[in-house]
Amino acid sequence: MISELVLKNRSYRRFYQDSAIDLDTLRELVNLARLSASGGNLQPLKYITSSDPQRNALIFPNLGWAGYLKDWPGPVEGERPSAYIIILKDTEIKSQATEYDCGIACQSMLLGATEKGLGGCIIITVQKEKLQEALKIPDRYEIRLVIALGKPKETVQIDSVGPDGDIKYWRDKQAVHHVPKRDLDDIIIG
Amino acid sequence: MISELVLKNRSYRRFYQDSAIDLDTLRELVNLARLSASGGNLQPLKYITSSDPQRNALIFPNLGWAGYLKDWPGPVEGERPSAYIIILKDTEIKSQATEYDCGIACQSMLLGATEKGLGGCIIITVQKEKLQEALKIPDRYEIRLVIALGKPKETVQIDSVGPDGDIKYWRDKQAVHHVPKRDLDDIIIG
Repeated sequence: MISELVLKNRSYRRFYQDSAIDLDTLRELVNLARLSASGGNLQPLKYITSSDPQRNALIFPNLGWAGYLKDWPGPVEGERPSAYIIILKDTEIKSQATEYDCGIACQSMLLGATEKGLGGCIIITVQKEKLQEALKIPDRYEIRLVIALGKPKETVQIDSVGPDGDIKYWRDKQAVHHVPKRDLDDIIIG
Repeated sequence: MISELVLKNRSYRRFYQDSAIDLDTLRELVNLARLSASGGNLQPLKYITSSDPQRNALIFPNLGWAGYLKDWPGPVEGERPSAYIIILKDTEIKSQATEYDCGIACQSMLLGATEKGLGGCIIITVQKEKLQEALKIPDRYEIRLVIALGKPKETVQIDSVGPDGDIKYWRDKQAVHHVPKRDLDDIIIG
């Protein structure tokens, strides 16, 4: 059921780092993105995959983690992602819908990852120039975002948004990650 | 299997218009979007649903259909969508990731629709001002895109992109809709 998969597909930021993900799995996920809708069918997105520790170590320092958790700089060694998919825009393909395409591709890939017992997080706070340099990505391609992937090592719980309207996620004393979501009647306006 | 669902989830533009979709079904689909990721968890998206013929008739004339099919102005009466979900940005919620959020929400909803035997099309060519006026949508909300929904009445086939690199979809003599997709090895660049 897609509803179970959507519910299970939370944004995870702590992983069993030793639980490896092979490149074939990443290719399967990118294939889901490939077969998804693209504005004007232009397909301007390209992908870089990473699953080996050495390459992962080049990517990790360029990622921003969980902006609302001010005391938490990101996952410690041992809890870091075991794989990444970097989404790039191919600047030689003109499209007005690149960001829509990115979102569609992300959701296809993350639902696919969830089905495989994996989890991930879409990271848009990326030091793009540094990452571009670290991986020697040609100028033709612009980094849009990075999907971090791994076997989740945390519990994420959906709450209702309280009366103060605060949507910031937070972590409780048991390290459960709480995510306040707006109610259905607050988002359907007609 | 998510891969089967992704494959089945094509962009459909002709429908059995008489096959009604009730509002509860649309609410279920929006709920999938609600539970999906949102940049900074800001959740700036709002939704308008439509499933009655009178309201649908206000929406339809404001939509642009299949830009590459120059001889086809859109579905004829009888083959039009039986429902719509309009995605709006709530301008009182500041977010840098609204378009990513839109894509994620679209994919959740369309995979949910596919699972229910429905199909749809994300339409970004929308006469936004006219539609805003037709539905009396307050200025606070900006239309981002419209998802057309219905019971699909056409066959959509994925092809490989040919040597000329042309990605334009086309319709053959049997009215099968062909969509050329780039190969996996052409989109994974490293």
